[in-house]
Amino acid sequence: KVFNVYKLRLLDLKHDERFRYILIFKNEGKSAGASLSHPHSQLIATPVTPIRIREELMGAQHYYEYKDRCIFCDILREELNQKERIIYENSAFISFCPFASRFPFEIWILPKRHHPDFDSMGNDELYAFSDMMKITLGKLSKALNAPHYNYMLHTAPVRWPRRGYWTTIEYDFHWHVEIIPRLVHLAGFEWGTGFYINPTVPEEAAKYLQETLV
Amino acid sequence: KVFNVYKLRLLDLKHDERFRYILIFKNEGKSAGASLSHPHSQLIATPVTPIRIREELMGAQHYYEYKDRCIFCDILREELNQKERIIYENSAFISFCPFASRFPFEIWILPKRHHPDFDSMGNDELYAFSDMMKITLGKLSKALNAPHYNYMLHTAPVRWPRRGYWTTIEYDFHWHVEIIPRLVHLAGFEWGTGFYINPTVPEEAAKYLQETLV
Repeated sequence: KVFNVYKLRLLDLKHDERFRYILIFKNEGKSAGASLSHPHSQLIATPVTPIRIREELMGAQHYYEYKDRCIFCDILREELNQKERIIYENSAFISFCPFASRFPFEIWILPKRHHPDFDSMGNDELYAFSDMMKITLGKLSKALNAPHYNYMLHTAPVRWPRRGYWTTIEYDFHWHVEIIPRLVHLAGFEWGTGFYINPTVPEEAAKYLQETLV
Repeated sequence: KVFNVYKLRLLDLKHDERFRYILIFKNEGKSAGASLSHPHSQLIATPVTPIRIREELMGAQHYYEYKDRCIFCDILREELNQKERIIYENSAFISFCPFASRFPFEIWILPKRHHPDFDSMGNDELYAFSDMMKITLGKLSKALNAPHYNYMLHTAPVRWPRRGYWTTIEYDFHWHVEIIPRLVHLAGFEWGTGFYINPTVPEEAAKYLQETLV
């Protein structure tokens, strides 16, 4: 029901010409910046495409220009092939610890079907997404004693046909979810550079989560 | 003595051809990611210019191209003129809460003399810098009950004459220090966008710090 509300709000807000981007995210626990104690998601629509979103979109576009393939489809294929970073897989999704994880136990959830928009999901896919989120977050909670975390939905920005922006997005972007457990504190090096020092190998984190049964 | 060591290490490491950037920072307290309990600074030299440094340098360069003036000199002039965001001023420096503070009680320390490099300081300026850091951090500590914080030295990258990069840096960049007290937790919105929600007005933070006597 919650994820269906995400979809309905996205579909509705896309008709509002003031907005360029609609961000949906969840802060769970005080260390993750949650200000209310009951579980809740948040939605913020912005009149510009935020810089961190733009960086991801530009990166995906450059990869596509170079390789003629979606970078997320390539990651999906590689992870399914190697298997060692996969946490859980169902009919329509995988969850995995990314090869270049920025944080210990960072998790991405990637749909098997290439599409830039979260709201493109039909009921079956939405059901598989709920299963994926429930099991992946359940494993994280059980394995690490309910850590505080953030998750962010990375879905494509609003596209108005009259604008020249993001004309290739159907090809080069692939919606996904990024989950960041707040196990370590960000320090000066991360702030100052945008580089991340991660003491936990993603293969070990994935193995641990994969073996945690919920 | 500590700041003189910063200078000596910068001057020395600049001769090492492997490095493009030398970052000096301090993490104070657990929330700021400090892993040792005694006070300590850290230095990390990288073989590339980190993306967050690059963004700042490019921003300063674009401003210079547009205005023919250093953006930091313009900020300095504006802050000295308006006075309402200044915390402390001495012969060679100001500390202030920036107009677009990302965090509550964010503080910048800006030298009055335009120069891209921290290591260009002579002994008098270094002494004034020590006075500035001691008083500003003392005010922060007294006003907010010794909050955890990070500070990062923003100094220019290593410049090799054979490279075409950063040829305008003498004009458009101006070294400074950024101090980030860790009073709030970063949440999904900040992570997802690069935008920051700051509940504390910088003018009020500056007034409070300015009136705190140390």
